[in-house]
Amino acid sequence: MKRRVRMGMVGGGRGAFIGAVHRMAARLDDKIDLVCGVFSSNTEKSSETGRELFLPKERVYGSYEEMFRHEASLPIGERMDFVSIVTPNFMHYPVAAAALDAGFHVVCDKPMTMTLEEAKRLQQRVRETRLLFCLTHNYTGYPMVKEARDLVKSGRIGIVRRVVVEYPQGWMALPLEAGGQKQADWRTDPARAGASFTMGDIGSHCANLAEYITELKIEEVCADLTSFVPGRALDDDGSVLIRFNKGAKGILWASGIAVGEENGLNIRIYGEKGTIEWHQMEPNTLIVRWLDKPFQVLRTATDFTGKASLAATRLPSGHPEGFIEAFANIYRSFAETLDRKLEGDQAAAGDFPGVDEGVRGMAFIEAVVESSQAGSKWVKTG
Amino acid sequence: MKRRVRMGMVGGGRGAFIGAVHRMAARLDDKIDLVCGVFSSNTEKSSETGRELFLPKERVYGSYEEMFRHEASLPIGERMDFVSIVTPNFMHYPVAAAALDAGFHVVCDKPMTMTLEEAKRLQQRVRETRLLFCLTHNYTGYPMVKEARDLVKSGRIGIVRRVVVEYPQGWMALPLEAGGQKQADWRTDPARAGASFTMGDIGSHCANLAEYITELKIEEVCADLTSFVPGRALDDDGSVLIRFNKGAKGILWASGIAVGEENGLNIRIYGEKGTIEWHQMEPNTLIVRWLDKPFQVLRTATDFTGKASLAATRLPSGHPEGFIEAFANIYRSFAETLDRKLEGDQAAAGDFPGVDEGVRGMAFIEAVVESSQAGSKWVKTG
Amino acid sequence: MKRRVRMGMVGGGRGAFIGAVHRMAARLDDKIDLVCGVFSSNTEKSSETGRELFLPKERVYGSYEEMFRHEASLPIGERMDFVSIVTPNFMHYPVAAAALDAGFHVVCDKPMTMTLEEAKRLQQRVRETRLLFCLTHNYTGYPMVKEARDLVKSGRIGIVRRVVVEYPQGWMALPLEAGGQKQADWRTDPARAGASFTMGDIGSHCANLAEYITELKIEEVCADLTSFVPGRALDDDGSVLIRFNKGAKGILWASGIAVGEENGLNIRIYGEKGTIEWHQMEPNTLIVRWLDKPFQVLRTATDFTGKASLAATRLPSGHPEGFIEAFANIYRSFAETLDRKLEGDQAAAGDFPGVDEGVRGMAFIEAVVESSQAGSKWVKTG
Amino acid sequence: MKRRVRMGMVGGGRGAFIGAVHRMAARLDDKIDLVCGVFSSNTEKSSETGRELFLPKERVYGSYEEMFRHEASLPIGERMDFVSIVTPNFMHYPVAAAALDAGFHVVCDKPMTMTLEEAKRLQQRVRETRLLFCLTHNYTGYPMVKEARDLVKSGRIGIVRRVVVEYPQGWMALPLEAGGQKQADWRTDPARAGASFTMGDIGSHCANLAEYITELKIEEVCADLTSFVPGRALDDDGSVLIRFNKGAKGILWASGIAVGEENGLNIRIYGEKGTIEWHQMEPNTLIVRWLDKPFQVLRTATDFTGKASLAATRLPSGHPEGFIEAFANIYRSFAETLDRKLEGDQAAAGDFPGVDEGVRGMAFIEAVVESSQAGSKWVKTG
Repeated sequence: MKRRVRMGMVGGGRGAFIGAVHRMAARLDDKIDLVCGVFSSNTEKSSETGRELFLPKERVYGSYEEMFRHEASLPIGERMDFVSIVTPNFMHYPVAAAALDAGFHVVCDKPMTMTLEEAKRLQQRVRETRLLFCLTHNYTGYPMVKEARDLVKSGRIGIVRRVVVEYPQGWMALPLEAGGQKQADWRTDPARAGASFTMGDIGSHCANLAEYITELKIEEVCADLTSFVPGRALDDDGSVLIRFNKGAKGILWASGIAVGEENGLNIRIYGEKGTIEWHQMEPNTLIVRWLDKPFQVLRTATDFTGKASLAATRLPSGHPEGFIEAFANIYRSFAETLDRKLEGDQAAAGDFPGVDEGVRGMAFIEAVVESSQAGSKWVKTG
Repeated sequence: MKRRVRMGMVGGGRGAFIGAVHRMAARLDDKIDLVCGVFSSNTEKSSETGRELFLPKERVYGSYEEMFRHEASLPIGERMDFVSIVTPNFMHYPVAAAALDAGFHVVCDKPMTMTLEEAKRLQQRVRETRLLFCLTHNYTGYPMVKEARDLVKSGRIGIVRRVVVEYPQGWMALPLEAGGQKQADWRTDPARAGASFTMGDIGSHCANLAEYITELKIEEVCADLTSFVPGRALDDDGSVLIRFNKGAKGILWASGIAVGEENGLNIRIYGEKGTIEWHQMEPNTLIVRWLDKPFQVLRTATDFTGKASLAATRLPSGHPEGFIEAFANIYRSFAETLDRKLEGDQAAAGDFPGVDEGVRGMAFIEAVVESSQAGSKWVKTG
Repeated sequence: MKRRVRMGMVGGGRGAFIGAVHRMAARLDDKIDLVCGVFSSNTEKSSETGRELFLPKERVYGSYEEMFRHEASLPIGERMDFVSIVTPNFMHYPVAAAALDAGFHVVCDKPMTMTLEEAKRLQQRVRETRLLFCLTHNYTGYPMVKEARDLVKSGRIGIVRRVVVEYPQGWMALPLEAGGQKQADWRTDPARAGASFTMGDIGSHCANLAEYITELKIEEVCADLTSFVPGRALDDDGSVLIRFNKGAKGILWASGIAVGEENGLNIRIYGEKGTIEWHQMEPNTLIVRWLDKPFQVLRTATDFTGKASLAATRLPSGHPEGFIEAFANIYRSFAETLDRKLEGDQAAAGDFPGVDEGVRGMAFIEAVVESSQAGSKWVKTG
Repeated sequence: MKRRVRMGMVGGGRGAFIGAVHRMAARLDDKIDLVCGVFSSNTEKSSETGRELFLPKERVYGSYEEMFRHEASLPIGERMDFVSIVTPNFMHYPVAAAALDAGFHVVCDKPMTMTLEEAKRLQQRVRETRLLFCLTHNYTGYPMVKEARDLVKSGRIGIVRRVVVEYPQGWMALPLEAGGQKQADWRTDPARAGASFTMGDIGSHCANLAEYITELKIEEVCADLTSFVPGRALDDDGSVLIRFNKGAKGILWASGIAVGEENGLNIRIYGEKGTIEWHQMEPNTLIVRWLDKPFQVLRTATDFTGKASLAATRLPSGHPEGFIEAFANIYRSFAETLDRKLEGDQAAAGDFPGVDEGVRGMAFIEAVVESSQAGSKWVKTG
C-alpha cells in the first residue's frame, strides 16, 4: 500500500463500546486513517469525541447525510474512502443505503438490518453499486477460527455430523434497561434492536461462525426463545435445534441471563474422523480430537498451523493476541482489498463477511422467531 | 453395622464392563459381601467368573430363577440379602420382578426397563412388597453433584432458569456392532436396548442428573434423534429442548458419535443469582459463578463444602476420587439403609435413586422418541 | 491366583488417614484379605478398629511383637502372609525389622526409616532374608506416571535435560501442631518424623517420582529449607537445586505452607525432543509437547497409550480413576508377586518400589538437610 | 491531551520482532505519533522500513547520532519528543546515553545495559537530566499483574513467604544460531547480549515481575546456569534460589530449551493467608487461593477487581486482551506522563518501570552469573 485508506465513522461516541473497538481495530495495523465522523446524534457529544480523537473540527459532522454530501465533494485522496457504521441496529440500514448511494464503501456492524426484507434490499444495492461491503462478524477474524475452517475444508475431520455452538453472557440477568443502562436500553427495544435480542445480538454470530467454519448452510430451525427477566420486551435467552444441509445437525444456544458468563462464545464441530473445539475466551488454542490418534492442542503462531491462521497473527506463539487483534484482521483485510480496488482491481475480494452473510443472518433470525412462536412439536413427558 | 450385607449378582461375566464396576463399588467400603451369582447365560462362563471371584462353586448358579429359589431356602445370615442386576436392558424387568417376588431387595442398572409400561408395573411391585429398590444412576453419587444439589436447595443461586446438560461420547462413531463388539451389539438392538440408544444409555443419566440437582421436573420435550452411522438400527445422537416445571428451560444433548469425547457428561445450571458447572471427567471440582462476587472453584473435601458432599468423600482434598468411589457411594448408602431395614427399621431410606426415578426416566425416553418422530415445529430459513 | 493373600496391619486406627487408604487399596482388586492387625498402641482403640473391620477378636493384637509371634504359630494358609506398616515414621524401622526377622513379607509406608543408617541396615536385612519388601511410593502407581516412564525409556523425548518437580500443600500454613492436631503433631516432631518434615513427608515422593520416571539418579543437591511458622521444630518448606547423573538438572520444591494448595504434586520433564507434564490432581491426563509436532494430551485407557499404563487402569477412558486406584496398583502388583513367590517362584518381582528406593530416599533427605545447613554449595547424595 | 506526543525509533527494521510490537503498542491508544527513525544500521533496510510506515523520507535517518542532532534542530511541536530504543542489548547504553545528552526522553527495551556499571552510569545521567526514562518490562503492563500487586499491597494475602516464578521457552532447544537465525544469533553472543542469555533475556523479566508484585527486594541468589546446546557460548537454562528481604524465599527458573513451551512466564506468590497465581499465556485470569474460603478466579474487567487493573483494560470482561494491549499500557502511561511533563509538570510520574528497575535488573544478572560460577553458596545482590 502506498498510502493509508481513509475512514469515516457513524456512531461510536462516548460510552459506546463498539465504536472504540472499531477504531482500535482500524488503527492497529497502520493501514487506515480516521479522517471524519458523526459520532452521535447529539452534536455536542459528537464534537467532543472528535476532539478526543484529534480530528479537525470541520470534519466532525452533524448528520450522516451531511457527512456523505460534504465528503463526496472533497478531492480523492483527501475525502474518506469508506464509512464504518457502528450505530444501534435500527440505523444500520438507512446509513448503509445512503453511503452506497453516495458512492462510499461500507463497513457495518451486525445484525445487518432490522428485517430480512431490508437485508435483501441492501444486498441488491451492493450488487448494483459494486462497492465493497463488510459486515463485522468479527469472530471470523480469529486465527484459530480460520484454522478450524481450513481443517474442515481439508477433509481431515471427515464429513461434519454435529455442531454445538453456544454464546452465553450474563450481563443481562438483571433488568438493566429499567435503570437506563445505555447498552441494555436499545438492545431490549424492538424498535431499535429488531425481533430478537439474543438472536440479533449474539445468536447471529453463532450462526455465522458455524457456517463460516463448516461451509454448511442452516436449512431449518426449531427454536425456543424465552424472556426470563420480568418486564423485558424481547427474549433474553434462546435455544435452537438446527438442521444443516448435507444431514448435519446442530444445537445453538445464546443467552444474556447466564449469570457469571462473560463473553463465552464457543463452538464444537464433530466430524466422522475428528472433532474441533474453540473457545473465544481462550482464542489462541484449538483443541482437536481424533478417531485414530491422541488429542492435540493447536496453538497460534507455532509451526503446526496453516497459512490462513498464521497470516492472522502478529506475534510469536505464546504472546496472546485477543479480541482487538481479531477485529483488526477484518479491518486489515478490508483495507488491503479496498486499496487494490482503489488501484483499479475491480475483482478484489478479501477474507471478511459481506452482505450475503448479512442476508443469511436475518433469515436465520426470522426463522427462529417464527419457530419459537409455533407450538406443535412439544411432547409432554409421562 | 454388625455384619456385612450379602449380595448376589445377575450378569457381569467376563467382558462386561459394568458388572466389574458394581463389584468394585460394592467392595470398596467393606460393608458388602458378594456371596453368589449367575454371571452369564453361558454356564461355563458363569462358573469361570465365579472362580475368579473366589466364590464357592455351589453358589454360582445356572439361572436367576434357580438362584432366587435356592438362596431363598438358605437361612437368614447366610443367604443373599439383595441382588444386583447388571444385565443388558431387556433383562432388567424380568429379573427385578422375579427378585421382588422372591423377597429380595434389588439394585438395578439403568435404564430401569424397556418401556414406560414395564416401569410402572415394577413401581407397583416395589410399593407392594416394600422391598428396597436402588437404580444405579451412579453419577448422583459424586460428592460435587451432591454439593450442587445442596447449593440449589439453599437458594444461593436463586431460582433456576436454564439447564444445559450434555453427554458426549465418541466410542460409537464407527459401526462397531457390525464387527460384533459385545457392548455395541446389544446397545444398538431395539430388542435388547429399547426404543433409543442415546436416551436409554446416557440421556437418561442426563435427565436424572438435571432433576436430581435442581429438584425440577421435566414436563415437555422437543427432540431430534439421529442415526448417523449407516445401517444402525437405533439413534446414535440426540438433542432435546426441555421445559421444566416452574418455567425453567433446558438443553440436553447425548451422543455416541462425538469423536474423541470419552465420557463427557457435564451440566451447567443457571440461576437468577449464580451458576453451577460440573464435569464428570474432573469430578472433584465444582465451578460456581456469582452475580455479585468473583467466581469460585469449590473442591471436594475442603473446609468449604457442605455435609452431603463431605460425607461422600474418603480422602483429604487434592487426593482425587473418581468413578468407582462415586459408584461406591450409591452402594454404601444402599448397604447402610438395608442394614437398618434388616434390623427392623421399616422406614429406612437412603440417598440413592429408586423406582420412581426409573419411571421418570422411561417417561422421558418415550416422550423424546415421540417428539423426534413428529415434524411440525421445524421452520425453514429463508 | 487360587486364593487371596493374607495381610496383617500395624497402625491405621481411627483418625489415621493413611491406614484406611492402605486398606481400601488392598481391598479394591479382591486379591488381598485383611486377617489381623494391631491398629493402635492404645489397646481399646485397636479393638474398636478391629470390630469396625469385622475382624475376629482374637486376631486384633496388643503389640506388633505379639502379632508376629502368634501369627507365625498359625498354619500356612491361615496366618498372615505379609504385614502392612502404616505407623508414624519412627516406628517403620523397628516394625519392619521385626517382621522380617519373623519371616513375614513387608509393605511399608515412606519415608522408610528415620536415618540413612537405619535404611542401609534394613536393606541388608531384606537381602539376607529374600523376603518381599514394598515401599509405598504410591504415586508411581498412577497409569500416567507409568506412561511417562515408558515415554522417556522409549527415547521419544530424547535425552532428559531438565526436571521440575513440585509438591505444594497448604495444610500446614498454620501451627496446627500447637492445637494438637494428630497428623501435624508427629510430623513436626523430629523424634517421630526425622530430620525434615517437608523432605520426609513429601519431598521424598518428588525425588522418587523424578528418578522413577527418568531413570536418572540424583547426584548432588543444593538446598534451602525454611521453617516459616513460628515455633515449628522442623522445616515446612524446602527448595532444592539438583544435579542428576548424565548432566540433567532439576528443581524440587516441597512445601506445607503453600496456602490453598491441596495435594499439588506435579512434574515436568524436558528432553531434547519433547516435554512431559503430569499433575497428580488431574492424574488421568499426560501432556506431551514436541519439538516437531503439535502438543498432545494423552489420556488413560484410550487406544493411544502403552501397555504399562493400560494395565494400571480398570475402567474405559473418561471414567476417572484416582488416588485409591493408583495405590491399589501397588498393592495388586505386590499381591501378585507375593502369590508367585508363595507358589515357589523365588525370583518373582513386581512393579513396586522397594528397599533400594528407600535407601535412596533417606540419602536424599540427609543430603538436603546437610546442604541447607552448610555454606558449601553442592553436597553429594549418598 | 491536546496533541499526540511524538516518537522516534532506533532499531526495529524488518525481521525485528520487538520493534513492530513497540510500534503497535504505541499506536493502539492514539496518543503517540511515530515521526522519525533509524530502523537499521543498514541504510537501505532502514529506508524501506520507513516507507512501509508511511514516514516522510527526510525523517528516516542513517544513524542515531544524526537523528538526535537533526531532530533537536526542529521546532518543538514538530520534532520528536522521545526516542524508543529497540536494538539488541549492546546498543541500549550508547543510544540511551546519547539521547539523554541530546535532551530527549527515552523508552528503552530490557535488559537496560550490558553491565551493572553501565546501568549505574545511566541512572546517574537520568537523575541529572530529569528526563523521563521508561524500561519496557512490559509484563508489568498486564491488568492482572497490577491486580496481583494491589492484592499484596492490601495485605489480604498476608506477609509473603514464598515466590515461584518461571519463564520457560522452547525456541532455543536447537542451535538456531548456527544456522544464522537473527534472533538467536545476537542473543547467544556475549558481545551483543551480555553475560547471560537466559537471565538477560527473560530472567530479568522474572526478577522484575516478582519485585513489582510483591514490593520485596531480592537480596541473595544461589544459582545454577547451564548451557545445554553444544557449542553455545552462553547459558540457555538457569535456576536460581532467592532470598528476598523480610525473610521471603524464591525460586526462579528461566529456560530457552524447554521444548514445546511457548512464552510461559508465570508466577505464584504464597502469603500467610492467601496465594496468587498468574500465567502470561492466560493473562486475563488471576487465581487466588485462600486460607479461609474457596479459591477464586478473578477476571479482568469484571466488577470484582481493583482500579489499577480496571484502568489497564479497554474492553468488557470476556473480550480477551493480550500482549500488545499490556505493552500499550506501558506506552500509554508513558505518553500521558510525558504530556504532563511537556505541559510543565516536572514531578509527573507514571506506572511504568524506569532506570532504577534497570539497575536492579543488571545487579541481579551479575549476581546470578557470579553465584553460578562460584563455590560459595549465597551471593549478595548489589
